[in-house]
Amino acid sequence: MAMKRAGVSAISALCSSPNLTRGVHSTAGSKKIVGVFYKANEYAELNPNFVGTVERGLGIRDWLESQGHQYIVTDDKEGPDCELEKHLSNLHVLITTPFHPAYVTAERIKKAKNLQLLLTAGIGSDHIDLKAAAEAGLTVAEVTGSNVVSVAEDELMRILILVRNFLPGYHQVINGDWNVAGIAHRAYDLEGKTVGTVGAGRIGRLLLQRLKPFNCNLLYHDRIKIDPELENQTGAKFEEDLDVMLPKCDIIVLNTPLTEKTRGMLDKERISKLKKGVLIVNNARGALVDTQAVADACASGQIGGYSGDVWFPQPAPKDHPWRYMPNQAMTPHISGTTIDAQLRYAAGTKDMLDRYFKGEEFPVQNYIVKEGVLAPQYQ
Amino acid sequence: MAMKRAGVSAISALCSSPNLTRGVHSTAGSKKIVGVFYKANEYAELNPNFVGTVERGLGIRDWLESQGHQYIVTDDKEGPDCELEKHLSNLHVLITTPFHPAYVTAERIKKAKNLQLLLTAGIGSDHIDLKAAAEAGLTVAEVTGSNVVSVAEDELMRILILVRNFLPGYHQVINGDWNVAGIAHRAYDLEGKTVGTVGAGRIGRLLLQRLKPFNCNLLYHDRIKIDPELENQTGAKFEEDLDVMLPKCDIIVLNTPLTEKTRGMLDKERISKLKKGVLIVNNARGALVDTQAVADACASGQIGGYSGDVWFPQPAPKDHPWRYMPNQAMTPHISGTTIDAQLRYAAGTKDMLDRYFKGEEFPVQNYIVKEGVLAPQYQ
Repeated sequence: MAMKRAGVSAISALCSSPNLTRGVHSTAGSKKIVGVFYKANEYAELNPNFVGTVERGLGIRDWLESQGHQYIVTDDKEGPDCELEKHLSNLHVLITTPFHPAYVTAERIKKAKNLQLLLTAGIGSDHIDLKAAAEAGLTVAEVTGSNVVSVAEDELMRILILVRNFLPGYHQVINGDWNVAGIAHRAYDLEGKTVGTVGAGRIGRLLLQRLKPFNCNLLYHDRIKIDPELENQTGAKFEEDLDVMLPKCDIIVLNTPLTEKTRGMLDKERISKLKKGVLIVNNARGALVDTQAVADACASGQIGGYSGDVWFPQPAPKDHPWRYMPNQAMTPHISGTTIDAQLRYAAGTKDMLDRYFKGEEFPVQNYIVKEGVLAPQYQ
Repeated sequence: MAMKRAGVSAISALCSSPNLTRGVHSTAGSKKIVGVFYKANEYAELNPNFVGTVERGLGIRDWLESQGHQYIVTDDKEGPDCELEKHLSNLHVLITTPFHPAYVTAERIKKAKNLQLLLTAGIGSDHIDLKAAAEAGLTVAEVTGSNVVSVAEDELMRILILVRNFLPGYHQVINGDWNVAGIAHRAYDLEGKTVGTVGAGRIGRLLLQRLKPFNCNLLYHDRIKIDPELENQTGAKFEEDLDVMLPKCDIIVLNTPLTEKTRGMLDKERISKLKKGVLIVNNARGALVDTQAVADACASGQIGGYSGDVWFPQPAPKDHPWRYMPNQAMTPHISGTTIDAQLRYAAGTKDMLDRYFKGEEFPVQNYIVKEGVLAPQYQ
């Protein structure tokens, strides 16, 4: 079974990782599973499908307990005295989400001597120290595809909010004003604009499909070209060199995972080479961009608008500069946790737990680290 | 020529309208043209293409004056002492927009004894008393198509803003909060939802095309079915009976002109029969719906969200209930006056003035009232 630490003994021999001196864990028997989710609080009872929360715990408690497993659910994930820390020493499985991420550091992995499996209920496992997880022989998996539609839809919403200058109009309404000029002088149609996506994986491709009827000039940059049929269908043009593509764009959308290669990719220098007034949408990861460089460029007008739902760290502190910069259309991390997405990633997480208990493989695209080996895009 | 009052003498004889006893006007010679637009104020210099404003007056002043015409531009349109009233007695052409509408009442038409032509820079001429204009033998025309893309894009933005519950997240950001549950408990994907458009004219059809890749269940109601090819392309299903379609919808979009038949069509009774929590987008006209019924239904939760840019009257007064109702995502009237749209409707208005001076016909689809006869959809 994929997530046996025993399964990495060969790798262990090769890389002589000291972590792999820990005992061998079997998948058989009762497991202790810890889930870290955001709290629903007063919203818990408002929607029967609000499953991605502490209160509902993905809706899998009865199923887990009926099989003799222990299931701990919490939102308390920070600091040495948090609830998560109390369970680290003897948990077997840790379920987290990108929306309220439990940062799984090398230190925590070291403490979690029984840990075998790290599951992300959603997509994006960069809150986990993947190198440390791999060295410890763990398996890390996410529910690939569970919320790609949710995120792509949200990206198109943000593109339109920025291009059409929605928020100043909304502010006028709630402030009792009416000043069409104050909105219209920088409101545009999306039609005819150049939109470039950095990354054309599952989400980027769904975005391109949704952009198609808007009659834009679509560009994409990725390691590899997309399927020729999809390229044909969307009319998107491949740009091999990121730095050639970016300055052509009226609108840039980030759709690339956060890795050591992509961290801080949109830095002060790159931003200075973009079109003046460029609009940027980032639902991928906050750390893909230089926080202060983005805030400064919004203040100077070099960036004409910035919208996204990802920050670093999360929750964003009260003094995070993106809360206060002009022309932002930010939200907390939400795009992948619509009710529809929750139902999908809850089902996907349950499916992987079921396979884990039965010693079966996961769907291959779900693996981020499999028996100590990182998926190619993280290497 | 279409806008000669002389041209309606036959109709005049039939309907014995007393207005038609006025003298016959020729299109030859110098004309007095008045344009009513919103003011750009401090925004005037920020964008060279900001032409739909008092300051720029559609960019046609030099062209008009070089031909010996007089061109008065103002935003002062209300009350007996306003600038517009001063020019009523001797203007030949009045240009207005839906964004800052000069309400052209029967009384004003009576005062404007030289008036021949009413042009709407944009789409939607319901700020004009069309019956009175027809009886006076006037021609009313708009720049059909000039901003249909702009409005359709904006509608899709508003659908997404409501479905995905954007604004509560944005409010958290600017208020220093972070509470994913407060957003997620009523955030959904658009995918799979039932979207119905009331009206599938130019804007409605563009919306259906843009909705297509979202994999919704698309419905439309109109007097006539759309082109079978477009129906096939979008997968939209025709609903002959409005009251059969409306209760099926998760999201309703109004895309019908305001006429005496459509005024107040979404009233308290109809709203009570909609799906609980239905989302409504109205970029068509505010008076299509019962203002207070919408506000009450937003307060009760019967309507889950209401977004649009049209109000009655405009500008909306400070105490308009839609400014204060829950789950609104309103803006001032903006969707059809993007910079791209302004350039198009300025060009279209100039084209019609040119044809008017030369005694030529307008593009047929631009006529709302032609020589005293209303276009079919207004009859």
